[in-house]
Amino acid sequence: MEFYLLNQTNIIGYLQSLPGSPLRFSSFDNLEVQEINDGNMNYAFIVTNTLDSNQSVFVKQAPPYIKVLGEDWPLTRQRMTAEINALSYQSSVCPEMVPDVYYQSESLSVLIMQNLNQHAILRTELIQCRYLPRLAEDLSTFLAETLFYSSDFALPSAEKKVMVNKSGNQDMCKITEDFVFTYPFEHHEMNDYNPALTQSVIDSVQKEPNVRAHVAQMKYVFMNKPEALLHGDLHTSSVMVNPRQTFVIDPEFSFAGPMGFDIGALIANLYLNYFSHAHQPLAGSVHYSQWLLQTIDDLWSKFEAKFLSLWSEHEQSANVAFMGKDLTGCSHQTFRHVFIEQVLSDTLGFAACKMIRRILGVAKVADFMQFEDQCLRAKLETQALKMATTMLVNRQAYTNIADVNELAESVSSDILK
Amino acid sequence: MEFYLLNQTNIIGYLQSLPGSPLRFSSFDNLEVQEINDGNMNYAFIVTNTLDSNQSVFVKQAPPYIKVLGEDWPLTRQRMTAEINALSYQSSVCPEMVPDVYYQSESLSVLIMQNLNQHAILRTELIQCRYLPRLAEDLSTFLAETLFYSSDFALPSAEKKVMVNKSGNQDMCKITEDFVFTYPFEHHEMNDYNPALTQSVIDSVQKEPNVRAHVAQMKYVFMNKPEALLHGDLHTSSVMVNPRQTFVIDPEFSFAGPMGFDIGALIANLYLNYFSHAHQPLAGSVHYSQWLLQTIDDLWSKFEAKFLSLWSEHEQSANVAFMGKDLTGCSHQTFRHVFIEQVLSDTLGFAACKMIRRILGVAKVADFMQFEDQCLRAKLETQALKMATTMLVNRQAYTNIADVNELAESVSSDILK
Repeated sequence: MEFYLLNQTNIIGYLQSLPGSPLRFSSFDNLEVQEINDGNMNYAFIVTNTLDSNQSVFVKQAPPYIKVLGEDWPLTRQRMTAEINALSYQSSVCPEMVPDVYYQSESLSVLIMQNLNQHAILRTELIQCRYLPRLAEDLSTFLAETLFYSSDFALPSAEKKVMVNKSGNQDMCKITEDFVFTYPFEHHEMNDYNPALTQSVIDSVQKEPNVRAHVAQMKYVFMNKPEALLHGDLHTSSVMVNPRQTFVIDPEFSFAGPMGFDIGALIANLYLNYFSHAHQPLAGSVHYSQWLLQTIDDLWSKFEAKFLSLWSEHEQSANVAFMGKDLTGCSHQTFRHVFIEQVLSDTLGFAACKMIRRILGVAKVADFMQFEDQCLRAKLETQALKMATTMLVNRQAYTNIADVNELAESVSSDILK
Repeated sequence: MEFYLLNQTNIIGYLQSLPGSPLRFSSFDNLEVQEINDGNMNYAFIVTNTLDSNQSVFVKQAPPYIKVLGEDWPLTRQRMTAEINALSYQSSVCPEMVPDVYYQSESLSVLIMQNLNQHAILRTELIQCRYLPRLAEDLSTFLAETLFYSSDFALPSAEKKVMVNKSGNQDMCKITEDFVFTYPFEHHEMNDYNPALTQSVIDSVQKEPNVRAHVAQMKYVFMNKPEALLHGDLHTSSVMVNPRQTFVIDPEFSFAGPMGFDIGALIANLYLNYFSHAHQPLAGSVHYSQWLLQTIDDLWSKFEAKFLSLWSEHEQSANVAFMGKDLTGCSHQTFRHVFIEQVLSDTLGFAACKMIRRILGVAKVADFMQFEDQCLRAKLETQALKMATTMLVNRQAYTNIADVNELAESVSSDILK
């Protein structure tokens, strides 16, 4: 089918034309179409039966350009193929945390899926100090299962290589290479600095040779470590929650990359949210800040435990171990320990780059932008940058997240003194 | 064209049928065909004009199985596509060190190329104590140029990813994963031990948890670091030499992998050769052993210098740096230093695995097998294993090859005392 854009006028006809009635609408006569305008890349619509609001779907279409910038900013539709591929994989290993897909079309770059109208964006909930008791449990499950089952510990060698080749998403990877690992660290015209941020703070990132060298190392790892099929953009606006459920959405940046990149993206955005609360002496804020740190600690610890447990269960049941047979003593434990330490170190390095790019780069986070007071924002940004650069250059020295949480606490209290 | 096997009878007709007379034979009337039987995987022939021995070609064909094992050991012909791809790439960056290719056919898995009849296999020359004054210079050039120009430092991001995808060679990678990184370290039926090698020495590799854990780490890096287009099997029988020229041949294991794997393969085989000479107190052997160590040192040092120089020249002329713009102070030097240290550490880890697999695995080296005295061989093997395990577990502590050479010297003198 030749590509065309869906819009408010033609979308119902399109849905009606789909073979096999995959959308479960009892009738197409009373459908209401609502265009969703908060995405930057893609068009999105919610289509609902006005006679039964339970009959509702979310429709997403990738145009051959960046939606908010228009046709002068071409971007291949490969990103929708990557998203379809990722959703299919994620739902095969972790179905309860991924929206149901009703229909997909690579030729039109269209995805029609479950409308998550009982859920809110995680970032918004965090900004509003909502406690989410399932968050660490659910996200650690998502990370452990998606990362483990696409790794060389679960997949036979040839199958893993086929997965890697199938998961190419080079245009989106290039966006990450530029906007996460390059532009925020140089004087790039696309950067956007809070006017109240001092030059010396900006320079403490951009003109610090050690920071630049470590960022380059993380960029190199990002480009040269296809160890698992990643979500690729797992910040807190890619997660939808309510007190009972957690969903991970929007894997259009998905590619085969380093495990720490997904974990780091989440942790980075949780720390940014932490700094947005930690400056307030109110009892509620203090308590919420502590909950955030505990959630970060739980997220990592539970990820580690679940990943190691999947690994050992899988090798026992498959009777094939990555390390080979006839292992004695602590062989397994030693390898697994070193492996997990490397994932932690990657995680912290990537988290640092992600925190920095949200402050010095073009894409900001609402956690900080909610504050109109530029000076207050600059204080929080300065703290976050201080933490990020410290975590980045020392990432190989950390053996647990508690020490990283201590860094966050000490940075947030020190600078405000 | 449907696949069929070339043989002594049909090969001349085949050569004559090639379009465009790519082989430069003045006539097909007086061709002599010689089958070469020393390869394990593929069929090989030398075809020469008896009236002018300068008119001579080397013909190689990959059957859909392992030649020496027969049709019961199937192996896809993808390896010939990989070899064609690698030769084409290597000759584009380093033409003087790769045989000229006259004709190639993916459908018949045939490669027709320069007959290197003025050159000898490097391993044979090393066993015979031949000094090769160009060796370190030439091989360091080959390594620096092939590894640099296929890396993310030289190729634009998208082009690099296309290269990686095009260079899949999964069956050959699986052979390496099994025969280099797995079987030699377990009690595998395909292993072949010198009967004079003591069980405690074998156990010092196979039953040492720390060794097993480090080998698993190297296997993981081998499978998850597509940083450059490798030769993939760069031991000393993949190099042909005379005092004036060095050629690298047989890249059928080529794939996108870690740079240290190619460098490590060479260094491993040079150290194995070193141990085969170092036990002899004859002046000639002592002198040759020292030349070998100097060659290893030169190989690494020259590789490092050439790689860094290609990197800095390329970024200056292209006016694009991997690290981004606006770098201050020692940013470049710091990153490059850390990068090269990582390549050295990978190199030593892979060299160790390669040395071990040549002793405990099925594939042996003539450097040791030339000795009929099993006890002498066991002594050399024990030394080489001792060096390899030490180098493997300490690989991240070495910052230069001189210290590794010292280890080789101390191991070879200590154990014989």
